[in-house]
Amino acid sequence: MSRAPEFPLAVSLGDPAGIGPEVIAKCWDNRDRFDIPPFVAIGDPRSVSNVWDGPLAIIDDPKEADSAFDVGLPLIQIRSPEEDRAGHPSVAGAHCSLDALEIAVGLARSGSASAVVTGPVSKEQLYSIGFQHPGQTEFVAERCGIAAGNVVMMLAAPTLRTVPITTHVPLRDVPDQLTAGLIESRVRTTLRGLQRSFGIAEPKVAVSGLNPHAGEGGMLGQTEIEVIEPAIAALRAEGWRVTGPHPADTLFHESARAAYDAAVCMYHDQALIPVKALHFIDAVNITLGLPIVRTAPDHGTAFDIAGQDRADPRPMAAALRLAAECAVHRSDAA
Amino acid sequence: MSRAPEFPLAVSLGDPAGIGPEVIAKCWDNRDRFDIPPFVAIGDPRSVSNVWDGPLAIIDDPKEADSAFDVGLPLIQIRSPEEDRAGHPSVAGAHCSLDALEIAVGLARSGSASAVVTGPVSKEQLYSIGFQHPGQTEFVAERCGIAAGNVVMMLAAPTLRTVPITTHVPLRDVPDQLTAGLIESRVRTTLRGLQRSFGIAEPKVAVSGLNPHAGEGGMLGQTEIEVIEPAIAALRAEGWRVTGPHPADTLFHESARAAYDAAVCMYHDQALIPVKALHFIDAVNITLGLPIVRTAPDHGTAFDIAGQDRADPRPMAAALRLAAECAVHRSDAA
Repeated sequence: MSRAPEFPLAVSLGDPAGIGPEVIAKCWDNRDRFDIPPFVAIGDPRSVSNVWDGPLAIIDDPKEADSAFDVGLPLIQIRSPEEDRAGHPSVAGAHCSLDALEIAVGLARSGSASAVVTGPVSKEQLYSIGFQHPGQTEFVAERCGIAAGNVVMMLAAPTLRTVPITTHVPLRDVPDQLTAGLIESRVRTTLRGLQRSFGIAEPKVAVSGLNPHAGEGGMLGQTEIEVIEPAIAALRAEGWRVTGPHPADTLFHESARAAYDAAVCMYHDQALIPVKALHFIDAVNITLGLPIVRTAPDHGTAFDIAGQDRADPRPMAAALRLAAECAVHRSDAA
Repeated sequence: MSRAPEFPLAVSLGDPAGIGPEVIAKCWDNRDRFDIPPFVAIGDPRSVSNVWDGPLAIIDDPKEADSAFDVGLPLIQIRSPEEDRAGHPSVAGAHCSLDALEIAVGLARSGSASAVVTGPVSKEQLYSIGFQHPGQTEFVAERCGIAAGNVVMMLAAPTLRTVPITTHVPLRDVPDQLTAGLIESRVRTTLRGLQRSFGIAEPKVAVSGLNPHAGEGGMLGQTEIEVIEPAIAALRAEGWRVTGPHPADTLFHESARAAYDAAVCMYHDQALIPVKALHFIDAVNITLGLPIVRTAPDHGTAFDIAGQDRADPRPMAAALRLAAECAVHRSDAA
């Protein structure tokens, strides 16, 4: 196994009616084959035992996770007033998923866990209980005392890492949301994240253009000239190794990828299309800009297949491995 | 070799100062290894002999190409008043590239050639001699009596074919250019192209959304609901197998690709990013909606490396092979 971090990972099960409990249990089952680092799950034990026949090791303290890990799936339990059935989300389940997330973040903040890995939640269910954040990422940021606007989402896969500058906004709104300040901030967070969490001393970032052919010298749009180039110039003046704006269509083939550690893109699909085309199973969502390591598999609750033993555990396995790798890099740097 | 079409391909050399002559000559050199069908090149013989030591077979009629093909590179010559040097484009070279294109299209229109493959031209040079079209595609369409707005560009690679609905426009202008009528027209041309040129009797087309997560039910934009869904419904009502709008980020991994013959996308990078990430070397530009088959390698003149024996002939080889395959499908259907 790769070098494990000093403390176990804290893994929130996500919505108890989703596929989170199943894929986490399957990761424990395949811990040798998938090279899974020691972790402690947090959630309702019934959501796991209802979909899995393996042994649970109920613990109170993450310290016990290491020794328990060979005996059963270590789990800090949350007592939900109702038992959720896989595929049938409920209000109680939403509360349970939020409690698990909060405990996992607390363990990482206090140093008892080396990183947080979050199982999939239902935003719809969370909104129904008054959850005020767009998603788990913003909740984690707030609990860490970081403004949600200052963290970035990275998709990290074996041969490609990308960051979208704008995320869940209509494509029509993207051009006006892009400012040189926003691009600088996102790229800087990405560069520091590559240093701290990926152990890359002098990271190289490629920045995409917004328009076809990166605007073709202004013929196909002005955003590159007016917004993106000044941001890149400012970052280079600080000594960072940043290139671009690059035409996005030729930025993701094998030899292009070899020239950078991460590509920062202008919008959601520009960043996510290449990662998911090349690495659908092992692309991991990692939040940069936090005082803790946080990763997540890049899939949702999949209520439609939950409880049917059909969920693929490999995305969760990739999220667990990456969290451990990043935690090791962080403790080395500390 | 794969089954060859009845007549040779007509291949315009493109700008004599670009890499067109070199890659076409390298394709002839490697005709067995690359499985190259018989073709006749059209252009200035000096642009080939200046960058290549192999034998030319100057011919007057494409009929001679088949028997000449084993002896030398069959070429119908255009006498340019000036000799172009590789890497140094000129006005005479621009005229020569346009003459070659016109002859190649004429040969295919008259039935003497089975398809047209176009070498890379310099738009800047063509504009300097009064060329009125955005590119070669529109010129070919006009010479075939088809309105430029009625042909579509497809990028075709071994495991993925995509079509952008809008092409060389600023991203900001994309949402307003999309109409249900335009989408219907482009998808219909794509479907008919898959039938006629690819021999797929009941083609399946997947249509992407415009916004992240295909708009997420209207939360992230209205274009899917107001424009794309009605277009898909109209096409399905005609009996076509069309699905979508699909979230673009999950449309291009291996198992997703298995569900369709082509993906029709809303804008340039959405269509080109996945094809070039997966197939940088063997993605071929093919024009659908014409009465003839026309393909092109998906690269430019590359004046910066022309004449240095550095150009990769594999994209041109892929364009030649695909042109022959499509010509065979067309003659089978005729």
